[in-house]
Amino acid sequence: MKQNSKPIYLDHAATTSISTAVLEAMYPYLTESYGNPSSMYSIAQEARQALDNARQICANVLGSRSSEVVFTSGGTESDNSAIMGAALALKANGNHIVTTSIEHHAVLYACELLETLGFEVTYLPVSSKGLVDLDALQSSIKSTTTVVSIMYANNEIGSIQPISEISEIIKAKQTQYGTKIAFHSDAVQAAGYLDLDTNKLGVDLLSLSAHKFEGPKGVGLLFIRRNTPFIPTQVGGSQERDRRAGTENVAGIVGMSTALRLAVENRTQNFEYVSAIRDHLINSIFERIDNCQLNGDYENRLPNNVNFSFKGVEGEPILLGLDLLGIAASSGSACSAASLEPSHVLLALGLSNDLARSSLRLSLGPSNTLEEINSVVDKLQPLIRKLRTLS
Amino acid sequence: MKQNSKPIYLDHAATTSISTAVLEAMYPYLTESYGNPSSMYSIAQEARQALDNARQICANVLGSRSSEVVFTSGGTESDNSAIMGAALALKANGNHIVTTSIEHHAVLYACELLETLGFEVTYLPVSSKGLVDLDALQSSIKSTTTVVSIMYANNEIGSIQPISEISEIIKAKQTQYGTKIAFHSDAVQAAGYLDLDTNKLGVDLLSLSAHKFEGPKGVGLLFIRRNTPFIPTQVGGSQERDRRAGTENVAGIVGMSTALRLAVENRTQNFEYVSAIRDHLINSIFERIDNCQLNGDYENRLPNNVNFSFKGVEGEPILLGLDLLGIAASSGSACSAASLEPSHVLLALGLSNDLARSSLRLSLGPSNTLEEINSVVDKLQPLIRKLRTLS
Repeated sequence: MKQNSKPIYLDHAATTSISTAVLEAMYPYLTESYGNPSSMYSIAQEARQALDNARQICANVLGSRSSEVVFTSGGTESDNSAIMGAALALKANGNHIVTTSIEHHAVLYACELLETLGFEVTYLPVSSKGLVDLDALQSSIKSTTTVVSIMYANNEIGSIQPISEISEIIKAKQTQYGTKIAFHSDAVQAAGYLDLDTNKLGVDLLSLSAHKFEGPKGVGLLFIRRNTPFIPTQVGGSQERDRRAGTENVAGIVGMSTALRLAVENRTQNFEYVSAIRDHLINSIFERIDNCQLNGDYENRLPNNVNFSFKGVEGEPILLGLDLLGIAASSGSACSAASLEPSHVLLALGLSNDLARSSLRLSLGPSNTLEEINSVVDKLQPLIRKLRTLS
Repeated sequence: MKQNSKPIYLDHAATTSISTAVLEAMYPYLTESYGNPSSMYSIAQEARQALDNARQICANVLGSRSSEVVFTSGGTESDNSAIMGAALALKANGNHIVTTSIEHHAVLYACELLETLGFEVTYLPVSSKGLVDLDALQSSIKSTTTVVSIMYANNEIGSIQPISEISEIIKAKQTQYGTKIAFHSDAVQAAGYLDLDTNKLGVDLLSLSAHKFEGPKGVGLLFIRRNTPFIPTQVGGSQERDRRAGTENVAGIVGMSTALRLAVENRTQNFEYVSAIRDHLINSIFERIDNCQLNGDYENRLPNNVNFSFKGVEGEPILLGLDLLGIAASSGSACSAASLEPSHVLLALGLSNDLARSSLRLSLGPSNTLEEINSVVDKLQPLIRKLRTLS
């Protein structure tokens, strides 16, 4: 039966609710301050000023110049335009792109699109824990390599890649070959919990999506380090210093910058709290449910990510059962939720098709309580038992 | 000096304010109904349902199937992806694109990008009134033509192209050559005032932008007629039936569909009212200011568009003067407002550089009053006189 009480939301990796402070910050730009920021008159200059402020807030978080922040329509556009924009701009130098086999489809399919245009792509393998093989990375980079795209933290299993270390490898190769290799990282899942300082990370391009950290849907950003070769893929007006055309989503951008500022202000506290309830969740599942495995690395893992495979049970009936019990969860990426294919990420870790199909992702947020976590385990245990009996 | 009273907003072609009804419709999706529409559980299904409803509302306006409506981040993305998506999909048939010299830069620059990839583009001339030369269109289409993109109504001078007639010409050529020619129209400026029935118009692709008709910024749509060859240019998740990846901007989409429904419900009434005050504005300017000319066609013109050139005065000081007097206006496209180049549209009509630089666009909306119009002329007359004395 359907629960009438408030659902327990454990799908923060799919999307988050907009925080009250964020919505309040957006409100003036959904109402009286509606000017087009490109226009000259006073009412439009309020919108222009709001954009400038938002850009500075984001730049502060990224440790960058505000001119290095480009606002987009979300993580997918940021990933697409980073990879296509850099690869096309550096085409004269080479046609080789390096990425990993566990990237989000926004990265993988952008690479595939470039393959149809004559580019060559290396998909690096990962360890059984989901960490990129640094030796494989090192040996994959050649004189024709122009773009490397490696995600900061994985959306399904939460594994965190050593981005600074990867950057060092790329820089050494750059020096060796005397070429430019643009390093992009999809930081969409990392934003709420990990350091986004682009200098420490050593990235040239970095993608964020507002709705993953209590901002609105339909807005994201792409950090483009100064002097990084880049051809815009959305063209028209001269917005965003000619790097992304189209009237700016002012309210969304203000919302994103506010959400990002708050996420960073609360990062340490959220990290500690969410890690603690996550560990409790992982331990409780191991204690109370047999024949299950935690997918991904335990150490290098987002504090809000839990991903289990339950032998002998498919993910879909687990999700359905949890939904009926008032728990919102996922089997992996929301963007692939409609797909019947097993997760490409779990297959890349070496899981069998069956085990990959039996996965459950529980992604936590600061608003989740220990009581909710206990309630989830209380409901999950008999559900798995029942589904195993049925199958 | 700056006026403290509410400014008179005559730049509705640049952007509009979100209507109260639209904001109210968006509100649940900015707050409690925050689910990711791709997810399976109940809270996400509210968002999925909202998307489905929004798509059906838009389809009703377009006279289309809901599956033919693709939500985007705005007019620029819609224009870009229509032209690139169709041209790339039809590449095996030919590499020739036909457009006009007065399109928005979102169309022109997409064509230029394709030129760098080996495509050939014909830029059709227009008459001194801004109407496309149908004979030139007819003779431009050849066996290698795969895409024709002609805007419904121009953003600077409001000239309305005979889209149905153009469609007939294209269809005849299609039959003659036995090939597919995808017909795209940028209807961004038309949405509030003209019929958007895609069957009457005979288009395969049509672009809309929400913020031009009292919807939010950062959201638009692309109509893609069934069976129109199309390669998505934003790739990743399987949203929008694999035609546009990325988590959907649910609140924005709901806002757009509500705004579109209201615009169509009020269309006849708005058309009549706005035409009347526009005519009064045009007549008053002609009566009270000498040495000026109305740019564009008078008959085939958007009811809300006024575009004058004032001999011997530059547009920029006019705008500055009007802003100081509490009037928000534009010299042309907001997207090009920062540019010092004279308008490519006015140059295409045959205006001299000087006359093109002396233009003023006043774009009206249903909330403008006759008093405001009279006040604008009262202020514009001495302003032009003063600027002429100074120059």
